[in-house]
Amino acid sequence: MMTNPVRVTIWNEYRSEREREDVRAVYPDGMHAPIAGFLRQNGLDVRVATFDEPEHGLTEAALAETDVLIWWGYTVHEQVADAVVDRIQQRVLQGMGLIALHSAHYSKIFRRLMGTSGSLNWRDVGEKERIWVIAQGHPIARGLGDYFEIPHSEAYCEPFDIPPPDELVFVSWYAGGDVFRSGCCYRRGRGKVFYFSPGDQVYPIYFQKEILQVILNAALWATPNAIKPITSMERLPALEDLEP
Amino acid sequence: MMTNPVRVTIWNEYRSEREREDVRAVYPDGMHAPIAGFLRQNGLDVRVATFDEPEHGLTEAALAETDVLIWWGYTVHEQVADAVVDRIQQRVLQGMGLIALHSAHYSKIFRRLMGTSGSLNWRDVGEKERIWVIAQGHPIARGLGDYFEIPHSEAYCEPFDIPPPDELVFVSWYAGGDVFRSGCCYRRGRGKVFYFSPGDQVYPIYFQKEILQVILNAALWATPNAIKPITSMERLPALEDLEP
Amino acid sequence: MMTNPVRVTIWNEYRSEREREDVRAVYPDGMHAPIAGFLRQNGLDVRVATFDEPEHGLTEAALAETDVLIWWGYTVHEQVADAVVDRIQQRVLQGMGLIALHSAHYSKIFRRLMGTSGSLNWRDVGEKERIWVIAQGHPIARGLGDYFEIPHSEAYCEPFDIPPPDELVFVSWYAGGDVFRSGCCYRRGRGKVFYFSPGDQVYPIYFQKEILQVILNAALWATPNAIKPITSMERLPALEDLEP
Amino acid sequence: MMTNPVRVTIWNEYRSEREREDVRAVYPDGMHAPIAGFLRQNGLDVRVATFDEPEHGLTEAALAETDVLIWWGYTVHEQVADAVVDRIQQRVLQGMGLIALHSAHYSKIFRRLMGTSGSLNWRDVGEKERIWVIAQGHPIARGLGDYFEIPHSEAYCEPFDIPPPDELVFVSWYAGGDVFRSGCCYRRGRGKVFYFSPGDQVYPIYFQKEILQVILNAALWATPNAIKPITSMERLPALEDLEP
Repeated sequence: MMTNPVRVTIWNEYRSEREREDVRAVYPDGMHAPIAGFLRQNGLDVRVATFDEPEHGLTEAALAETDVLIWWGYTVHEQVADAVVDRIQQRVLQGMGLIALHSAHYSKIFRRLMGTSGSLNWRDVGEKERIWVIAQGHPIARGLGDYFEIPHSEAYCEPFDIPPPDELVFVSWYAGGDVFRSGCCYRRGRGKVFYFSPGDQVYPIYFQKEILQVILNAALWATPNAIKPITSMERLPALEDLEP
Repeated sequence: MMTNPVRVTIWNEYRSEREREDVRAVYPDGMHAPIAGFLRQNGLDVRVATFDEPEHGLTEAALAETDVLIWWGYTVHEQVADAVVDRIQQRVLQGMGLIALHSAHYSKIFRRLMGTSGSLNWRDVGEKERIWVIAQGHPIARGLGDYFEIPHSEAYCEPFDIPPPDELVFVSWYAGGDVFRSGCCYRRGRGKVFYFSPGDQVYPIYFQKEILQVILNAALWATPNAIKPITSMERLPALEDLEP
Repeated sequence: MMTNPVRVTIWNEYRSEREREDVRAVYPDGMHAPIAGFLRQNGLDVRVATFDEPEHGLTEAALAETDVLIWWGYTVHEQVADAVVDRIQQRVLQGMGLIALHSAHYSKIFRRLMGTSGSLNWRDVGEKERIWVIAQGHPIARGLGDYFEIPHSEAYCEPFDIPPPDELVFVSWYAGGDVFRSGCCYRRGRGKVFYFSPGDQVYPIYFQKEILQVILNAALWATPNAIKPITSMERLPALEDLEP
Repeated sequence: MMTNPVRVTIWNEYRSEREREDVRAVYPDGMHAPIAGFLRQNGLDVRVATFDEPEHGLTEAALAETDVLIWWGYTVHEQVADAVVDRIQQRVLQGMGLIALHSAHYSKIFRRLMGTSGSLNWRDVGEKERIWVIAQGHPIARGLGDYFEIPHSEAYCEPFDIPPPDELVFVSWYAGGDVFRSGCCYRRGRGKVFYFSPGDQVYPIYFQKEILQVILNAALWATPNAIKPITSMERLPALEDLEP
C-alpha cells in the first residue's frame, strides 16, 4: 500500500573507522557502509549523517525527510549537542522510527527516550554470541530461524537498565555465561524504537547477513504511518452537552 | 514481613494554597495535609517537603530516608532545579517508588522518567468523572468496587503522551465525552512509578475516601524491597571458561 | 515487499440476517458482505465461511489457505464444533491472524486463546459510542483522527475479563457512563489476535467507513510473515560441548 | 496489613517419588515436602494435595480455602479431570494465585490459562543452569543477587510457546548453549499466575535456598486482595441519563 520508499538516515559518529587502523581494516568505508548498501538493495532510500557535519548532519531539514533514524555512536556520546537530541526526540514523538545499535544504549537520545541510565555490564574477549528469537512470528524476526550465531562478539550483560520492553524480540546467550536482552521494542509518542545490541566496531558484524536482515526488518517495522504531533496541551471544549 | 514503617515523602509545591483564596478555602493546610493524615493513620511514616525549602526539601539526606515519593506540582515545574531532578531520578532507578499526581504529568521528573512529552488535552468545567477499575484484582485497586465517581473534576483527555503503561489500572469517563488513562504503572530501574490523574486544587478531591485509598495502595505497591544501584557499566570477567 | 494478496476468510454465523427481519433490513446480504466488499476493494483476497456449511466452512484445506480469519458469531457459540476450534487454535499458533468482532468475545476460539471467561457487562439502548485512539501511531489506527463516533451502538462495559492486552489501541466512551477496551492486540504463538468490539447486528456499523478502515488495518497488521509450528516438545542435543 | 496467614495448597502428582527409586532417593517425602517446610517456616498456612486423592484433593471446599495454588505435575497431565481444571480456572479468575513449576508448562490448567500449547524444547544431561534476574527490584526477585546457579539441571529451551509475559522476571542461561524465559508473570481475571521452570525430579533443586526463596516470594506476590467474580455477563442500566 506504501508507494514511496522508506527514507532512512544512518547516523554514525564515524570516528574510530578514521582514527584506528584495526577498525578501518574491518570497515574501510565506515560501519554505515554495509548497512546502507543492504538497505538500498532492498529499495530503501538511504542517507548517511555523521558527527562531524554541522549539527551532526541532523538539521531540521534532514530530519523532516527521515522516516527512520539508525544510530551508532560510542566515543562522542556526551559531545552530541543537546539541541540536536531535543530535535530527534520531538521527531520520534511525532512518528519517526529510531533504531539504536550496540553502544547507542548509552547515547543521549536513547537514555532520553527510555528514562533510565541505559547501563549494563560488558566484556570484550571475542566470545561466541548466539541470538535466540523469543518473539516467534514478530516482523523483526522475519526470515530468521530459531537462532543465529555471531562467532566473535563483545558481550553485553544483564542487568541492563532499560524499561521492560513492550516487545522482547531477541535474547542473547554468551559463551562466557551471560544472557542479554539483545532486541527490544518500545513505543514513544507516535514513534517506534528498537534497540539491537550486536555490533562492536572491531568485529565484522554489520556484514553478517542475519544482522542486516534484522536491521532491514526493524526499519520496515519502525516506518511511521504518518508524522504528526500527538497533542499540545490544548484546552478543549466539551464534546457533549453538560448540565449548567 | 516488613517490620519498619514505609517512609513516604509528600512533595507539594505549596503555592496556590498560600496565594489563592479559592484554593486555601478547600485546602487550608495545604493539599498534602489530607494525604499525610490518611497515610499516617494507616501506619506510614510521612514527611512533607515543599518547593520553597532549600533544595526544595529534597536533599540527599531526605531522599536517603524516603521509600516512596509523592509529587504534586503545577505552577513551578520549570523552576525545579535540574540537580534535584537528577537526584530523584537516580533514587528511583535504585528502587524508590514515585507517585505522580494530577498536573505532575508535566513535571520534569515524570517527563524525565517517561521519555515522552507528558502532554494531554484538558478542560476545567467541573464535570463528573467516573473512574473505572480496569485491572481488577490489582493491589492499587484494593478495596474499590468496579468504579467510583468524582462529582466535580477537571477533565484530562486523551491523547495522553506517555509510554504504554506496564499496567493500566484505571480509565476515566468524563461527562463531556472524553476518556483518560487515569492510573498507570511503570517500572524504571529498580523503582516503580504510578501516575494518578485526579486532583485539581480547586476541588476537594484529596479528601475523598476512594482517592486516599488509591494513594495508600499505591504507596504500599511502590515500596521497594531494597535500595541499590542496578549496575554501573562494569567490565566483568567471564563466568565460564572460554577457549583461548 | 509482499507479492501475493493477503488471504482473508470472513467467518459469519449468518443466522440472524436470515431469521430476523430487523437484521435483514440492515444487512440484506449478511454482515460479512460490506466487510468483504471493502477488503476486496483494497486488494485482499476474501473468502466467506458460515456456520451451516460442513465443518462450518473451516476445513483443513480452507484454513491452509487463510492468512487472516475474521470472526463474527453470537447465537451459536456453543454449537461450534470443538474439533474446528482446535484446528483454528493450531493455525493461529502457527501464524494465522485472528480478528474477533463484537460478540466474538464470548466465542469458543477467543476464550480458548485468552484463557479467561471473556465476560463483560452490556446494555443495548442505541446510545452513542465514541472510540478514542489510545495507541497513536499504531498500524491499526492508520488514517484515523483522535477519535470517531458511532451514533447508535450496543454498549459493552468494563469489567471485561480479558488478559491485559499486549497493545491497547482503542478505548470507547459511552453516553450511558461506561468505558470499554474496544481494540485489543495479543500474540499467541506465531499469530496475532485483535479484538474489536463494535458491531451489533441491528446497527449499520459495518457500513461505517472508520470501522471498515480499522478492520482493513487489522487484517494487514495480523498478516503473518510465515506459517509454521513454533516447536513440538523436541529433545535437542546440546549446541555447545559439555564437560562429561 | 494482612492479618491472616496466606493459605497455600501445594499440588503434587506424587507418583515418581513413590515409583522410582532414583527420585525417592532425592525426595523421600515427596517433592512437595521441602517446599511445604520452607513456606511453613515463613508463616504460611500450607496444605498438600495429590493426584490420587478423590477429585485430586482439589474439591470445591479445598479450593475455597486456598489463596495460592502451587502445581507440580508431569506424568499424569492428561489424566487430570477436566471438571477439576474448570474449577481451578474459575478460582484463578476470581483471584487465586497459581504457581506452575517446571513440567507444569504442559499441564492442562497452565495451557488453559495461557491459550497456547506450552510446548518447548528440552535436554536432560545435568548441565549447569544460571538464572539471571531480569526484572531487578521485582517482588519475586527479593533477596537475590544478579543471578544464581543450579549446578545440574534439565535444560528447558526456547522457543517456548507462551504468550509474552506481562512481566519477565528470570532468564536462564544453559551451558549447552540455550536460553529460556524461566520466570514469567501473568494476570488472568483477578488472579496472578507465575511460571517458574527449574525443578526436574532427579535433581535436589527444591532443596536449594534460592529456589525456595523464589517460591516464597511468588506465593506472597500472588496472594489475592480478595476473591470474587469479575463479572457475569450482566445487562446493566445506564449510569447516566440518556436522551430518549
